[in-house]
Amino acid sequence: MREPYAVTAAGLPERVTVYEVGPRDGLQNEAAVVPVEVKAEFVARLAAAGHRVIETTSFVHPAWVPQLADAAELLTRVERMPGVRYPVLVPNERGLDRALEHGVEEIAVFASATETFARKNLNRTLESQFEMFEPVVARALGHGLRVRAYVSMCFGDPWEGPTPVGQVVSVGRRLLDLGCFELSLGDTIGVGTPGHVVALIGAFGDPSRLAVHFHDTYGQALANTLAALRAGVTVVDASTGGIGGCPYAESATGNLATEDLVWMLHGLGVETGLDLASLVETSTWLAAELGRPSPSRVVQALGVSPARRTADRDVKE
Amino acid sequence: MREPYAVTAAGLPERVTVYEVGPRDGLQNEAAVVPVEVKAEFVARLAAAGHRVIETTSFVHPAWVPQLADAAELLTRVERMPGVRYPVLVPNERGLDRALEHGVEEIAVFASATETFARKNLNRTLESQFEMFEPVVARALGHGLRVRAYVSMCFGDPWEGPTPVGQVVSVGRRLLDLGCFELSLGDTIGVGTPGHVVALIGAFGDPSRLAVHFHDTYGQALANTLAALRAGVTVVDASTGGIGGCPYAESATGNLATEDLVWMLHGLGVETGLDLASLVETSTWLAAELGRPSPSRVVQALGVSPARRTADRDVKE
Repeated sequence: MREPYAVTAAGLPERVTVYEVGPRDGLQNEAAVVPVEVKAEFVARLAAAGHRVIETTSFVHPAWVPQLADAAELLTRVERMPGVRYPVLVPNERGLDRALEHGVEEIAVFASATETFARKNLNRTLESQFEMFEPVVARALGHGLRVRAYVSMCFGDPWEGPTPVGQVVSVGRRLLDLGCFELSLGDTIGVGTPGHVVALIGAFGDPSRLAVHFHDTYGQALANTLAALRAGVTVVDASTGGIGGCPYAESATGNLATEDLVWMLHGLGVETGLDLASLVETSTWLAAELGRPSPSRVVQALGVSPARRTADRDVKE
Repeated sequence: MREPYAVTAAGLPERVTVYEVGPRDGLQNEAAVVPVEVKAEFVARLAAAGHRVIETTSFVHPAWVPQLADAAELLTRVERMPGVRYPVLVPNERGLDRALEHGVEEIAVFASATETFARKNLNRTLESQFEMFEPVVARALGHGLRVRAYVSMCFGDPWEGPTPVGQVVSVGRRLLDLGCFELSLGDTIGVGTPGHVVALIGAFGDPSRLAVHFHDTYGQALANTLAALRAGVTVVDASTGGIGGCPYAESATGNLATEDLVWMLHGLGVETGLDLASLVETSTWLAAELGRPSPSRVVQALGVSPARRTADRDVKE
């Protein structure tokens, strides 16, 4: 399979951790409900491709996200490989109880950077959402778990327009102060651009505990990632195959595709530990399970059939 | 319509010229042959959206590119607006004769950076291709025309792997020395990554006569553009709607979508003179003519129906 040609650039990290969110953020936003055995195979394939952190599922209430109602069963089916982290999203204390019952070692909590999204998604205010996180994080830390925090709508939301940078920093700092080891800055609706990314990361001062989580709704995810890497971020969330929103359906909010990210990173000589061919093969397999093509450009270019892969020999201009 | 929120970044130009290639590079690579009146309307809509340079068609032999066999008729139908350039691709002296007959004021010639593509696309060697360009450029300049030069396969080709930077610089300098006012560095198969872009532009020394031409085959086009802008390039080729290769068909070689580029540029506070809403409207109209959705993420997010545009109010996570 074609691989990118590596030419390094100044000012970039030597190694990047790709935080794989496909099984959780990807599948929860797909129209299709995927059978639990397919999910378990997906997670196993991701680990085999070299992923060392795979957000596996969510203990959100099944009425909210029916796609992930099988979270408990999935965890019993996933064979946890040594050296691989399998974090689970936990929205509240009930979710934490379930995570603890299933031997989860790392969780993620999910906060909003905007007032309206806090109300709509969490049924809380921007301020009162912390009343929900505080006992979850404290109890999780008490059990020796690692806790990651997502901040969503960091660049804008559909109701309030652009999100003030200071507001994101305020929410994010409080989560770090609670004891979260990492903060994932989410562009949930994909509207951000590179200058905004650099300004937000810069406003935090220290990028060492920051990750970025871009959705490709406006095609900006990879350019924003490049800007974030230059600003010192070394953890990037992505979804194998770019799942999480059909590009031609109601909500074009797919995550940055892991394959497109890896093509850029390997092209820049940045280590990821990931095997691109295995990822493309996994996405091709998953696309068949989901019944629609992957929105990842790399998967579209490389992942279809052997006949397809030879088509580029007939390039003409 | 939603517009990007502007946050400037250091080290970028204040203004970028978007060199629109949709009617030529886009339509020549579409499976559908578009009626000449639709093409004329497309060009008129592009000018109305603020484009000041629109590569309109090609005087290549119709047997090679039947999609553009109507070049002469199209030029008679296009109402040329003051202040707008309408360059035409011209492969050889016969093409130049036809361009001169139709009052064309700017042409573009098309060179290869690799031996194999020179043979396959031009039926020449890397060296002997210049025998074809020299009389075209000389005669065009003699008639007072401006001549742009494309160099294709600047990052790699399907046969030889990565293209040596020095080889691209050698081909490019010879074209500039012939009197071409601008050199468009093409990633024809879309394999390049940002470090390679910076290395290539740096190898030329002076970026002031360079443009970049990225295809989004591997999802790298916008990140590569960001790198090129930082390296001093201020002219970027793009295709409204990202036409020029269906993402789900045989050849996923679409150009960078003008809308995705403009979202980033306006988000960075870079002036383009373009009206994003008009571009999206044009791409939505053209997608209906082509019978397939636009591969542009921005068009997918904003360009469908009013019902679609309100769907993002129901974002959930």
